Amino acid sequence: MDMTLAVIAEKLGGRLSGDGHKIITGMASFDQAMESELCFADDSRYLVRLGETKAAAVLVPEEALNLSGNLIYVKNPRMAFVSLSRLFNPGPVIRDRIHPSVCVGNHVSWGKNVELRSGVVIGDKVSLGSRVLIYPNVVIGDGVILGDDVMIYPNVTILDRCVIGSRVTIHAGTVIGSDGFGFVPEGQQYTKIPHTGIVRIGDDVEIGASNTIDRGTHGETRIKNGVKTDNLVHVGHNVEVGENTLLVAQVGIAGSSVIGDHVILAGQVGVSGHLTIGNNAVIGPKAGVIKSVDAGAVLSGVPAIPHKQWMKAQIVVSQLPELKKKLGAHAKRLKELEEKGD
Amino acid sequence: MDMTLAVIAEKLGGRLSGDGHKIITGMASFDQAMESELCFADDSRYLVRLGETKAAAVLVPEEALNLSGNLIYVKNPRMAFVSLSRLFNPGPVIRDRIHPSVCVGNHVSWGKNVELRSGVVIGDKVSLGSRVLIYPNVVIGDGVILGDDVMIYPNVTILDRCVIGSRVTIHAGTVIGSDGFGFVPEGQQYTKIPHTGIVRIGDDVEIGASNTIDRGTHGETRIKNGVKTDNLVHVGHNVEVGENTLLVAQVGIAGSSVIGDHVILAGQVGVSGHLTIGNNAVIGPKAGVIKSVDAGAVLSGVPAIPHKQWMKAQIVVSQLPELKKKLGAHAKRLKELEEKGD
Amino acid sequence: MDMTLAVIAEKLGGRLSGDGHKIITGMASFDQAMESELCFADDSRYLVRLGETKAAAVLVPEEALNLSGNLIYVKNPRMAFVSLSRLFNPGPVIRDRIHPSVCVGNHVSWGKNVELRSGVVIGDKVSLGSRVLIYPNVVIGDGVILGDDVMIYPNVTILDRCVIGSRVTIHAGTVIGSDGFGFVPEGQQYTKIPHTGIVRIGDDVEIGASNTIDRGTHGETRIKNGVKTDNLVHVGHNVEVGENTLLVAQVGIAGSSVIGDHVILAGQVGVSGHLTIGNNAVIGPKAGVIKSVDAGAVLSGVPAIPHKQWMKAQIVVSQLPELKKKLGAHAKRLKELEEKGD
Repeated sequence: MDMTLAVIAEKLGGRLSGDGHKIITGMASFDQAMESELCFADDSRYLVRLGETKAAAVLVPEEALNLSGNLIYVKNPRMAFVSLSRLFNPGPVIRDRIHPSVCVGNHVSWGKNVELRSGVVIGDKVSLGSRVLIYPNVVIGDGVILGDDVMIYPNVTILDRCVIGSRVTIHAGTVIGSDGFGFVPEGQQYTKIPHTGIVRIGDDVEIGASNTIDRGTHGETRIKNGVKTDNLVHVGHNVEVGENTLLVAQVGIAGSSVIGDHVILAGQVGVSGHLTIGNNAVIGPKAGVIKSVDAGAVLSGVPAIPHKQWMKAQIVVSQLPELKKKLGAHAKRLKELEEKGD
Repeated sequence: MDMTLAVIAEKLGGRLSGDGHKIITGMASFDQAMESELCFADDSRYLVRLGETKAAAVLVPEEALNLSGNLIYVKNPRMAFVSLSRLFNPGPVIRDRIHPSVCVGNHVSWGKNVELRSGVVIGDKVSLGSRVLIYPNVVIGDGVILGDDVMIYPNVTILDRCVIGSRVTIHAGTVIGSDGFGFVPEGQQYTKIPHTGIVRIGDDVEIGASNTIDRGTHGETRIKNGVKTDNLVHVGHNVEVGENTLLVAQVGIAGSSVIGDHVILAGQVGVSGHLTIGNNAVIGPKAGVIKSVDAGAVLSGVPAIPHKQWMKAQIVVSQLPELKKKLGAHAKRLKELEEKGD
Repeated sequence: MDMTLAVIAEKLGGRLSGDGHKIITGMASFDQAMESELCFADDSRYLVRLGETKAAAVLVPEEALNLSGNLIYVKNPRMAFVSLSRLFNPGPVIRDRIHPSVCVGNHVSWGKNVELRSGVVIGDKVSLGSRVLIYPNVVIGDGVILGDDVMIYPNVTILDRCVIGSRVTIHAGTVIGSDGFGFVPEGQQYTKIPHTGIVRIGDDVEIGASNTIDRGTHGETRIKNGVKTDNLVHVGHNVEVGENTLLVAQVGIAGSSVIGDHVILAGQVGVSGHLTIGNNAVIGPKAGVIKSVDAGAVLSGVPAIPHKQWMKAQIVVSQLPELKKKLGAHAKRLKELEEKGD
């Protein structure tokens, strides 16, 4: 997959400056690039350090001035870097083959180019799209539907009747369609509510490693188009996660909450059940959301309040012992003034 | 599994009002029910909206007045709904069969009706009760004991010598019996303490997806009868979780802590090691428990304090910058008064 | 593996007091030991209760006075206990055998005594050291390198090209080498950045159950020698965890952060991305680190501040409603004084 710098510049529609014959073997970051690799520099912090990278060439913004070395001027160096990175790393080639150890149920429907690796288990009445790659030891329950261009990493479990869209990647160890945490108290004990719903995952979704996404008690838990989740994320029963929303590592969302489109829940955020979080809201790391959130809000803290207010309040929190002392001194001074005045 | 409304009313011991010949095909929630489904309405919020559900019929409280439509009056509509839901969804039929890919060790003892699906691995000297269903790719270590009516979802790991009671469900991806986090410092390094204990899980327990329950260093980690855990819960070595206690998603309990009966640890709660939490205590979401908790206490916050006190304090926290300003103004006014007084 | 007390005393280089013929069958804790077991007592809380243990004998500090019973006096009873515990529990014997269900790729390189259990999958060009034990249903990707004396518990996934050192234990359900959470926004959508880096794990590392350790975007995510992680820990792409650092359960570290040597991140700690945490720092349970931390610092809270300051501040937080009331009373008293003075 080696390419000359001139070929790369042409592919990117960029302007080449320097040695077009230079062979590029891969992509790397500015500080870790080796002598045949390409990196990018998209702001002044890196542009002033151009001499320090060992990279063979650097992608730079088209408006940058007074630079030297092997450079390709492009509109958006970071984006150019990513698209080039996908060229150099096109992902696994999917071969139309089923490993002999794979266990396939009855009435399975098959797309074109389906690769099932060792130890995969496919239930009855499963529907597999085209260009599906399932890594070893994945378990797919009865009636599951997978779209096209789906990639499922090892040791994932997708339980009965869940529906996965197209261009979806699910990382290792994740569980889709476990029962929700639904019990009815009977005296001191709890009786389980049967969970008859499903999980429905849209298109262009990426689910991180070791997520747990519970099925609806009835109806559906929905992960809509374009959602990306990080690792160890928990999504409760009947939750809806809106389009292009990001759930960062270790987020937990309790049952029946509705998260809007293009929301960001930062790492370790918790959302209580039956809440609504509006579109484009951003919830800061470790925040705890206990009431519904307006569209566009930026919140932090437990319970979550507007981020700026939280930041200011936390600074004062750290000064509280001192402020308490002042308050005590004031009380004394007030008493003295009051006694004097008598 | 379709039933007429009249049959359902009889099974529930409820009073039918409306069309007893109506065919019911399943259960659903009030807002998602379709035309042949049954839902319930157990409080006034739903009862006033009875005309809005598409359901074929609604379970309502026996004391409700002035309602119309196809109804079954019962004592506890929610509970009736759950028991009916179990009738419609009786769970998988367990067939007495071992998939040919299953790997079984020596000296295994078998109950009646044991179903082991593809890729299951059973160690030596394992004891399996009756009506045990083990989903694909589960690994059961040497000497493990499983009671009757146990269901283990895919990709679960139960390590050597752990003991699981009867009527226990373990959801996908969970690990039972990993070593505890026990090391002894030797200079800058840490030496591992061998973990020779086990995990003992009682009867009527449900363990969520991707839990990690460590074995005792010596002795046992105990999950007592009736405990229910949500997803991604961590239970450290030698912890004891009392009867009918609920551990909500992403809870973590450090080594040797003892949680009482009928306790609720809400989502993302953390409990430090070697503590005791009394019966019926409730710890709010995201709280951090760093000292032992009395029976019946309701706590929140980090560190956890009484919930009401915490709620009131958090309101003031959000006002702190303003209060600090007032304190500064008081200081100035005091100084002016003092100077005037001189 | 039974031993007489005399033999044990000799192995430990300790001084025996009592019945040297006593047969010891195993190790247990002070309160749970049974009549043929050995326990230890290393501080006065236990030494005064020596009569209460059922243990056959107790390891005690060599300087302890006026004790009775079967005792072995040693320099460090806890350490003696651990080394003895390893004698009694030497871990699994590794047999040179490959289960027939194992799926092995091409060009795999083998050390001596490699045991691969049922359902293990080994990719192409994998290098396995000597005395490697891989439990059932583990998946090892292409090009992975494992050192000597490596033990990998069931259902673990190690993805392509990751490098694992020697004397490493990885507990069940863990994922090594999942893609990092790296996306570039394009309008409302996110484009995935190909993750071409690896995870490199050093020597003498123990990784807990159900961890997720992401590969570098480019370059490496590094877990250095002697690191120990507890369960459900998340390590983001390109993170570096220094030597002999402890990551307690449910810790999350965002991308590109560098954790020093001999650091402790307590349970449920979160660390934001691109930060540095200095050597020997200790971050308290549930803390949220949002800026870099000096070597040796001891922090708590969200955002993390010095632990002592945090403790003092939290006490005042719980008193805030009362302090606010006082502040209000002061305002009133000030007004009265001011009016009086007019």
